[in-house]
Formats: sequence, structure tokens, C-alpha cells
Amino acid sequence: MTKRPQISLGLSMRYVGYHAAAWRHPSADPGAASSFQHFLHVARTAEAAAFDMVFLADGIGIRAKDEPPGSLCRSAQTAELEPLTLLSALASTTSRIGLVATASTTYNEPFHVARKYASLDKISGGRAGWNIVTSWSDAEAQNFNRDAHLDYTTRYDRAGEFVEVVTGLWDSWDADAFVHDKQTGVFFDADKLHVLNHQGKHFKVKGPLSVARSPQTRPVLVQAGASEAGMEIAARHAEVVYAVPHDIDTGRAYYADVKNRVEQQGRSRDALKIMPGITPFIGRTEAEAREKYDLLNALVAPELGLSYLYGQMGDLSAYPLDGPVPEPNDPKVRSIAKNLLALARRDNMTIRQLYTHIAAGFGSRIVIGTPSQIVDEMEAWVDAGAADGFNICPAVLPLGLEEFAEMVVPELRRRGLFRTDYAGQTLRDHLGIPVPPSRYAG
Amino acid sequence: MTKRPQISLGLSMRYVGYHAAAWRHPSADPGAASSFQHFLHVARTAEAAAFDMVFLADGIGIRAKDEPPGSLCRSAQTAELEPLTLLSALASTTSRIGLVATASTTYNEPFHVARKYASLDKISGGRAGWNIVTSWSDAEAQNFNRDAHLDYTTRYDRAGEFVEVVTGLWDSWDADAFVHDKQTGVFFDADKLHVLNHQGKHFKVKGPLSVARSPQTRPVLVQAGASEAGMEIAARHAEVVYAVPHDIDTGRAYYADVKNRVEQQGRSRDALKIMPGITPFIGRTEAEAREKYDLLNALVAPELGLSYLYGQMGDLSAYPLDGPVPEPNDPKVRSIAKNLLALARRDNMTIRQLYTHIAAGFGSRIVIGTPSQIVDEMEAWVDAGAADGFNICPAVLPLGLEEFAEMVVPELRRRGLFRTDYAGQTLRDHLGIPVPPSRYAG
Repeated sequence: MTKRPQISLGLSMRYVGYHAAAWRHPSADPGAASSFQHFLHVARTAEAAAFDMVFLADGIGIRAKDEPPGSLCRSAQTAELEPLTLLSALASTTSRIGLVATASTTYNEPFHVARKYASLDKISGGRAGWNIVTSWSDAEAQNFNRDAHLDYTTRYDRAGEFVEVVTGLWDSWDADAFVHDKQTGVFFDADKLHVLNHQGKHFKVKGPLSVARSPQTRPVLVQAGASEAGMEIAARHAEVVYAVPHDIDTGRAYYADVKNRVEQQGRSRDALKIMPGITPFIGRTEAEAREKYDLLNALVAPELGLSYLYGQMGDLSAYPLDGPVPEPNDPKVRSIAKNLLALARRDNMTIRQLYTHIAAGFGSRIVIGTPSQIVDEMEAWVDAGAADGFNICPAVLPLGLEEFAEMVVPELRRRGLFRTDYAGQTLRDHLGIPVPPSRYAG
Repeated sequence: MTKRPQISLGLSMRYVGYHAAAWRHPSADPGAASSFQHFLHVARTAEAAAFDMVFLADGIGIRAKDEPPGSLCRSAQTAELEPLTLLSALASTTSRIGLVATASTTYNEPFHVARKYASLDKISGGRAGWNIVTSWSDAEAQNFNRDAHLDYTTRYDRAGEFVEVVTGLWDSWDADAFVHDKQTGVFFDADKLHVLNHQGKHFKVKGPLSVARSPQTRPVLVQAGASEAGMEIAARHAEVVYAVPHDIDTGRAYYADVKNRVEQQGRSRDALKIMPGITPFIGRTEAEAREKYDLLNALVAPELGLSYLYGQMGDLSAYPLDGPVPEPNDPKVRSIAKNLLALARRDNMTIRQLYTHIAAGFGSRIVIGTPSQIVDEMEAWVDAGAADGFNICPAVLPLGLEEFAEMVVPELRRRGLFRTDYAGQTLRDHLGIPVPPSRYAG
């Protein structure tokens, strides 16, 4: 039997889990998203299971409006710890697992981002990754001197240049630049320092970076790779993409498309790993798994659930929750609600069922079943050429991760799909992704 | 005997210490400024001695130019870890000591600063402090889309508003806002959330902050308080000031001035601690202390030493180092070099002596002697009403801290000037500074 290619596993650990009602689960600490001890337990549990990385999505502000009234105060997505601060604190209290934090290219400066991630990479011994986002919400814009968010084209244009500047700064120092010669007093070899002198459309950044070359040289670059412009940035720079195709056929087409774009950029197809997000509900029987799913769904407060429909369909609070989804009166609302309405009609959903569908995973693909069924599904995606690994987004933390580590990981190992321990030290080692050459390499 | 007021002790731990040749000292790891393990040892040593806080000064870029040629590659101030990343990693590996990081109001956004320091305060259990700087160097400006740094007035005007926004965001949530009622599904009490809606000259920031109220409510605000505008910001907001008066008389006048300004702002005089920086050279005899000082001074490479005179006096590399400081030819240079020239003439200094004077402490006051002599000096400042404590800036780390903890701290305790252990948990507890009331308090 030839050795199977190994999958990569990430753990998304934002808030108390990916389900909107996670904090109300009997097992959950509702304040977990503000508790370092919670995240330390989660990261160490993932590390004990040899996950490639923990991952923190982010928005720089509280996105929800109180629409309908009474929804905002029922949302747990209102208080959390800032991702880079949190991952830095985890860097010194974990030893092997990768640490991927989100930073927005729209509301940051490239010098700060280059400096902080290089520092995280040094402190963690080569385990840092940067999830590149452009931000999209007006709520974030309004915390940064704007009334509304930047248009799509400007955002992605800025993002592309931002990444060029950051990677350029990371090449400031050759690996052997710091000679530290106490005898002669020479601290570094001047020929091995490179000043970026970037002058572009959005940025003018002189450099060099004031952080020495880090263990990975470049922290791993991660991208959603969902939109067209995002896929182009991913093809040029990203090393992990976590877009969420809805089914295996879409997934296979997406995978082929992204890998082809990577090749067109002159990179190896293996230099980028595609890791779709999944939210597993795991039971010893399928019925038990479904019970777990139903239990959480029943905990979605109607006010909160209706807020997920508000933006597209307006205020539905006057309608019976267990009745059909109404046709909106306002023709403008009707046109943007098309997809949601189509879904509700197709599956004959009530209002409650429609909002629960959204609240259960926020776009992460939900998989319900026994460990064996869940691994069947994961294996099918890998064998079909639709995934190199998965970003696990547990509905409730730490419970969902503990169950996955106890029940699903052993089954993945039994089938030869996942390692029993780390082979290397850095996140690049775990993922099997080489360090891109320095732009100054001879 | 009445109980003496206790002094506060901070530890400045940037680079390998405050002496320009620190990295060449026989005891030093030249790469220490890039090593987390080094800083962990330093912070834990300071914590074992019950220091109030460790402190990281910062510049966002490499400030030195290669003037005269060959000076830059001899400077150890070229590679370090980013302060907030480093202090976050120390937050989870220390338990009592305060953690003060610098962030510039000129090259940051208040929402980021409020969010990161609140997160650091939560992760550390109430030990965070923010050293507010406005940045002054062109080298920094050139890493952030500018050719030269902002003018003084704009910088301080922006800084004042920046601090208002940050403290406003920290008041976003009342202490008991998060009710976490699993039964009703209410996550927080909507009456206890405050949206800032700041609209000012420099910033438009809506809020609220997406971090729950932190243990100190407000991380401790630290300021150099050197310039007129800096003193005004300090009087309004700062809780620690570390300006460095040259002698005890200047120190007493400065202390009285700042404390009066604090009172004029309606704050208690005790709400702000004045902690001048000192760089101690400690020996069992005065001669031994002086030997330590001379040893380091002899390690300042001439190219590096001359770079400290270059900005004010031009290139002196053609003159004999052990000859007198020449009168500059260029009349423009002569006028800005006035103070340096006056100093050299007064003390009959050679070129080497003049640059060594600067390289030995970068403006921190140097105190050379036995533990008893050093404590005499500290005690004199406290008794004269010139200091509430001191920011210790060891010439070489960790050696200078280890010596201070072993030799000076016991003497401070013998005289009843410094505690033997922490009494509280937070940095505010250590300093004896209350939490300012929320702007929304009834």
C-alpha cells in the first residue's frame, strides 16, 4: 500500500464556537471568548491532537445592528480578545501548533503587520500565519474615520500592494546577516541588509524591517480566496485557502481553478493548501449526532435568529416563526432576498428553519454523523481532489473540539489520512510548504 | 517610626540594555533583543524582585543613518521584537509584574490601540500599561507613507484626541454589562453598553469596543512628559511619567510643576507617579563600579560613537578621537551643536569622551557606586520631592538587573523604601493608583 497523502487540520476558535447559540449550550462558559484560559485549553487540546494550526477570524468592531430590536443584546459576537494579542500569549504557552491571526489590509499599515507577524514568528519558533482580509462591513469602517467601507476594487488593489510590501519587508535581512562580532564591534554584515524603498499607488514604505529574519522567514499566508480578486491574491501569495464550497462538485471545480491559477503564477500546485471549513456534529449514532444539532438549534433566540434575515428580508418579527417565509412587500428587498427565498421555497422552510440554517454554522459546511460517516465525507473530498485538508469550525468550544479529537482524529489515523505526531517544528513543516525564496536571493 | 512611602520600580528592558556597547559585554548574548527567552528571564527576574513593571520603549523603524559610514552595522539598535507582541507573550508566562508597551499616536489608529491594550489587560489579569508617544523621527515617518515626521503641534494635538478616544472606548461596557443569561438568551444588558460616537478634528470613531471591560478598566497610562505639550497630556491623563531631569534641583522643580498641573486638572496629586530613569553601575566598592562603567565605555566602536555626534556636529572622523572637540566649520552646524560644545568645553572632553557620555545611557541618568551609595542617591530624590520611584535602565541585560536585584533591592528594603512582595494583583495595585471613574458613571 502506498502511503496516502496526509491531510492538514486547522481549528477555527473564534467566540464560543461557530453556532450562534453556542454560549447557551449546557457545556459552555458564556464568557469564554474573553477568557485566555479557555483559549489556552483549546489550543493545547488541538496541539495534543497534532492539528496544523489554530485560526482566528476577525472583524474590527461589533458588526451587528440592533435589527430587529432585542437582537444585539442576544448576540455573543460582541466581546472577544484581539487575535494577535491572544496568539502572542499562546505562542509562549504552546510549543508546536501553528498560530494564524487575521489582520485587515484596509485598516492597518504594512509596516505594523510585517513587524508584528515577524515577531510572533520569532517568539513562537516559526509557527505564525497571517490571514489576509480586506474587511467589508460599515461597522468596521466607522471605527476608522470612514462612513462606509471602501469599494471592492480599491480594497483588493490595496490588499495586493499591501502583501507585496509586507513580504518585501520580511526579506529585509538575509538569514546570516547578524554576525554579532564582539571582537570587531560589527553587529551585522551591511551587504546582507536590504532596504525596500517601496513606492506604489497606496503605500510608500522605506524599510528595512526592524525585526531580524524569523524562523519561517515568512509567516504562512492564508486567504479566504472566495471572490475573484481574492482568488487572484491567493494564487499569487497564499499558502492556505479556506473557502467553503457548498458541495463536493463545486469543491472539485474550485480546487482545480485555484491550483491552476497558482501554477499560472509560476508556483508549485503544492505550495497552496485548500482547506474548506466544516462544522461537525458527532455522535456514537447518527441519531445522537442529530440530537446534538437540534439541541443547539433550539437555543437560537428568535430575536437573534430574525437578525440574520433582517439585512436581506427586512423585519419578519410580525410573522409566525413556524409559518412559511413571506414574500417581502418592498420590491427592493425582494430582489436582494432572492437566494434566501429560493432556498426556503426549495426546502419548504419556515422562518425559524431558515434563520436556524444560517445561525448553525455561518457558512461553514455542516456535517452530521458518526465518526466513521464524518471521515467518509472528509475522505471523499480529498479523494475527489476537492480538499487538501479541513478547517474544523466546532459549533461549541471546547466541547466540539474535544469530541473531534477523541472520536474523529483516531478514525482519520486508522485510515492513514492524518499523522500521529508532528514531524517538524514550524507551521511550514506541518503543512509541507517550503519557504519562498527571498527577492534578493542571488 | 511612621511607615515611609513606598517607591515604585520599573524596569526598562529594550535591546540588550541601555549602553550602546551592551551587546559586546562579555556577559551579553548579542542577539538577546530578538530572543523571547531572554526577555522571559529578565521579566521573571524583575518579578521575583517585586518590580512594579517592565517597560518597553519603541521606535517603529531603524532610526540610524549610516553616518559616518560604518556606524549603522555597528549598532545593536537594528533588530528587536515588537513590544505588544512581546508583552502579550510575557503576559501568559508571568503572574504579577506590570507590562508597559509603547504605541505611537501618530502611526496608529485609536480603535486598534484600545482593543489591543484592553486584550493585554484581560490576558494578564490587569497588568497592562500604555506608554503614549507621538514619534519624532523621519525614519519612522518614511515607513508610513510620509517623507518627514508631522510637526510638533499637529502631533500633540492628535495625541490628545487619540487618548480621549482610547479612554472613551475603554468605557464602552459597564463592569456588570455581561449578564450571560442562558435561560432567557440575553447575553448583555443593553443599558450597560455605551457607544462612543466620537467625531473630532483628527478622528471619527463610532465604537463600541469589542472587548469587554478589562480588570483595570483602563490600562495604566504612561508618558515621557518631557516637552510642554507632553506635560499637558501627562497632567490630563498620565499615571506614570518617566522624564529624566539632570539633577536633583531640576528634578524637584519638575516634580512640583507636573503635580501642580495634575491638581489643576482636578486630579489627585497621587494619581500620577513620577519615575525618572536611572542607569546604575553597581560595585562592592566605588572603584569596582567605576571599572564596570569604564569597561563598557571602552567597547564603544569609534564609528558608532561618532554617529551620536554626526547629527549635531557633522563628520568628525578626520579628527583625533583623543583630541579636543573641534569648532565646526559650518556655521549652521555650529548653532545646533551649541549644547554639546558647551558640555565638552566645560568638562574639557575629548571627542571620545563626548560620544561615550552619550552612548553610556542615552539620556538616562547614570549613577555609579556601591549599593549603599546608589540607594543614598535614590532616597535623596524621594526625600527632596523629586521622585515617586525610578525606572531602572540597566546598561547591560540581564546582568545589570541581576546585580540591582541582588545588591540594591535588599538595601532599599532595609531602609523601608520598597516592599518585599506584591500586595495586590494589578499594575494599579502595585502603583497605588485608583481606576478613574467611567465617563458614563451615574
